Amino acid sequence: MERPPAGWILSLGEELLTGRVVDRNAPWLADRLLRMGVTVEGMNTMGDSPGELTSFLECLDPFPRLLISTGGLGPTADDRVRHEVAGLLGVGLVDATEESVAALETLWQNQHESPAPEHFLDQARVPEGARPLRNRAGTAWGFAVSLPAGGRLFCLPGPPGECRSAFLDGGAEDEIQGSQRDCGGILQGLFHTSGVPEAVVEEKIRDLMEAGGNPSMGITAHGKQVTVSVLAKDEPGGEGADAILEARAVELRERLGDLLWGRDDETLEGVVVRELSLRGQTLATAESCTGGRLASAVTSVPGASVVFRRGWVTYADEAKVQELGVAIETLEAKGAVCEETARAMAEGARAKASADWALAVTGIAGPDGGSREKPVGQVWLALAGPDGTWAVQRMQWARGGRLAIQDGSVRDSLEILRRELAGLPRLPERPANRVARLPGDA
Amino acid sequence: MERPPAGWILSLGEELLTGRVVDRNAPWLADRLLRMGVTVEGMNTMGDSPGELTSFLECLDPFPRLLISTGGLGPTADDRVRHEVAGLLGVGLVDATEESVAALETLWQNQHESPAPEHFLDQARVPEGARPLRNRAGTAWGFAVSLPAGGRLFCLPGPPGECRSAFLDGGAEDEIQGSQRDCGGILQGLFHTSGVPEAVVEEKIRDLMEAGGNPSMGITAHGKQVTVSVLAKDEPGGEGADAILEARAVELRERLGDLLWGRDDETLEGVVVRELSLRGQTLATAESCTGGRLASAVTSVPGASVVFRRGWVTYADEAKVQELGVAIETLEAKGAVCEETARAMAEGARAKASADWALAVTGIAGPDGGSREKPVGQVWLALAGPDGTWAVQRMQWARGGRLAIQDGSVRDSLEILRRELAGLPRLPERPANRVARLPGDA
Repeated sequence: MERPPAGWILSLGEELLTGRVVDRNAPWLADRLLRMGVTVEGMNTMGDSPGELTSFLECLDPFPRLLISTGGLGPTADDRVRHEVAGLLGVGLVDATEESVAALETLWQNQHESPAPEHFLDQARVPEGARPLRNRAGTAWGFAVSLPAGGRLFCLPGPPGECRSAFLDGGAEDEIQGSQRDCGGILQGLFHTSGVPEAVVEEKIRDLMEAGGNPSMGITAHGKQVTVSVLAKDEPGGEGADAILEARAVELRERLGDLLWGRDDETLEGVVVRELSLRGQTLATAESCTGGRLASAVTSVPGASVVFRRGWVTYADEAKVQELGVAIETLEAKGAVCEETARAMAEGARAKASADWALAVTGIAGPDGGSREKPVGQVWLALAGPDGTWAVQRMQWARGGRLAIQDGSVRDSLEILRRELAGLPRLPERPANRVARLPGDA
Repeated sequence: MERPPAGWILSLGEELLTGRVVDRNAPWLADRLLRMGVTVEGMNTMGDSPGELTSFLECLDPFPRLLISTGGLGPTADDRVRHEVAGLLGVGLVDATEESVAALETLWQNQHESPAPEHFLDQARVPEGARPLRNRAGTAWGFAVSLPAGGRLFCLPGPPGECRSAFLDGGAEDEIQGSQRDCGGILQGLFHTSGVPEAVVEEKIRDLMEAGGNPSMGITAHGKQVTVSVLAKDEPGGEGADAILEARAVELRERLGDLLWGRDDETLEGVVVRELSLRGQTLATAESCTGGRLASAVTSVPGASVVFRRGWVTYADEAKVQELGVAIETLEAKGAVCEETARAMAEGARAKASADWALAVTGIAGPDGGSREKPVGQVWLALAGPDGTWAVQRMQWARGGRLAIQDGSVRDSLEILRRELAGLPRLPERPANRVARLPGDA
């Protein structure tokens, strides 16, 4: 069994180096490679000045590797990848397929009076001897070439949809998959939790996380979601990666218990929609400070229409009264951010939508509107259901700003519903979800 | 006038190499550096195995540079940055401040019965001679050191909130700003458009985009937003970067005309909220396929409560009837995705919310529910206002999937309102917003 080749990802483009664009291609490619057993050793982001790619490839190529570049294949003058790679290999550019250049010429003629400029047509050309990678989402072809010292380089377009098309439909993934057939396997599992801070999760599994172990493990927090990752490798002459991964999965389920709600591509909103759907139950939402984010999280799930019928964004007080039947007296006496308002919003939404469940959120998202009693980040959540209404105050981490407070409130309310549907104990009312202030801190 | 030093960003962590986490620190830092006149030449993402950082720094250091690393400063065994940097410099670790280690010890004692382990306390130590960078958002201190060949290295924590704290409050930004005082200036301007494809924008400014020019320019499309970037540098002994940037801004306003709606940090929802706010007008939303995303875009803007009073997510047909007064006959005869339903939703929302304007969205977000007549991606948008109601069908690019269709619909509806508020001509009803099918394409 050969060791699988390590991967390296190159992201090209000035827009990445100025911080204007967040690189989504590199993580996506890393994940696809990992699923095929290729671990990515490094990633580089570089500009598009002449010669930059060439000198990098000359430096990296001596180590036989799987290299994937994104960007630099388009129609403009700073798209130099085709020419640089052809130059490095000492070959010219040829048509990707018999009809590729003519097709682009036709496309141009449909929109312009003039003949297509060469730099536009170059998008349908690849270095001689390269494997063309068709891009169904745009005009620029990708390609794959073998480098002088044995590395294999896949050049993909930069726009994320085109990068994915050239990788998936264009044949890059198939080729890598094929070359991996006899290599040792690597499998990744992701295990998601919500409702408690990263440190609480880590404490439960710290002894499993020793460096250099198989499987190797990591923990990452994304807002209110804490994910444990497990990377399992085939033991030479021993257990397979799948058995190693599944044994660890069993262990994690024991350690993390009901904090664990999902695995791999599962999302908290997806789990909630699935569970409601299995029960034939429906959900309504009533939002103030989250302004529609809870409803959009739920409706981001394909098929959500089976369980989600309607929602309200009652941002203004009079909307809470008129749409959801919150009592004016409550708002006058206690304000919009209090237990009574949250309960009344949830109950009003549940009744008006004739839904089995209703979630309500009302709080101070900031940056203004906070006070000593009701600081920015204070949020009341309520869940109305078949057995009554339950409300809880959660403090959101205000330093993350308005969006973090809104997102944290959405996560918390979905987690509340998930636990209720699963018959789990309710989370404590005021969790320690702030970073503790240090004694020496000003 | 000295040339400003170039920057280089190192992102450390296995979670980045497996694609599990999207690196948000590197673009954020690149943007902060650029504002101070430091251009980032390259970015690297690497794992955290022993020696990896050391060998990289040894390779990169000979070129005097500003290096910024993120990650690898936490309490676990794979957080090796402090020790590796101290090893490279041949020094030991010392307490960041007189009370830093004692403070962490106290923090640990508050939560545990046992004394704090050394790897936990190491978070409050820095290499001898380093400048400590306080991190108010977490427990791990950052630090800055000078490398043997003259480079200056800033080591920041990996969690985005902590990275920002150590950079902004910890003193890194101040130091870089100070060292930049006598260097040539660089300024970036971003110019945002919506409503037409990237190619249409490019055609209007192609002659301004020649490589190597000052200012240098780029174009990026983010869903339905197309942004033109301009990077201006001081001309040695000549015009300043600010004059060069502003001259180009004037030119772009002439070329792009009413397609241009904002600059730099402005967002389309922010512009719409500001314009409504200036007029003392209000907005309501009625959403079907966007499921709350339009309302959450509007309420993501601080101060949106002045103009946004309430919104509905009428996902189910009966919700459209009961909440917004859409006629059952319309839904039965023409379905939920048609001009009449969109108009009725907008008019119902405007009347019920007593708002000046109401935007309605109804369409097929997929992946299921499409038909020959109403394919996935078909969306009807309606705007009800003081002078009546206007509806338009827009085709969203279905290959981007459910979220791209939802987001595209939100962008289009905000752009419709922006143009109406500004008294601009309405966009064509069926824009060529699909990538043309190529003649040779299957």
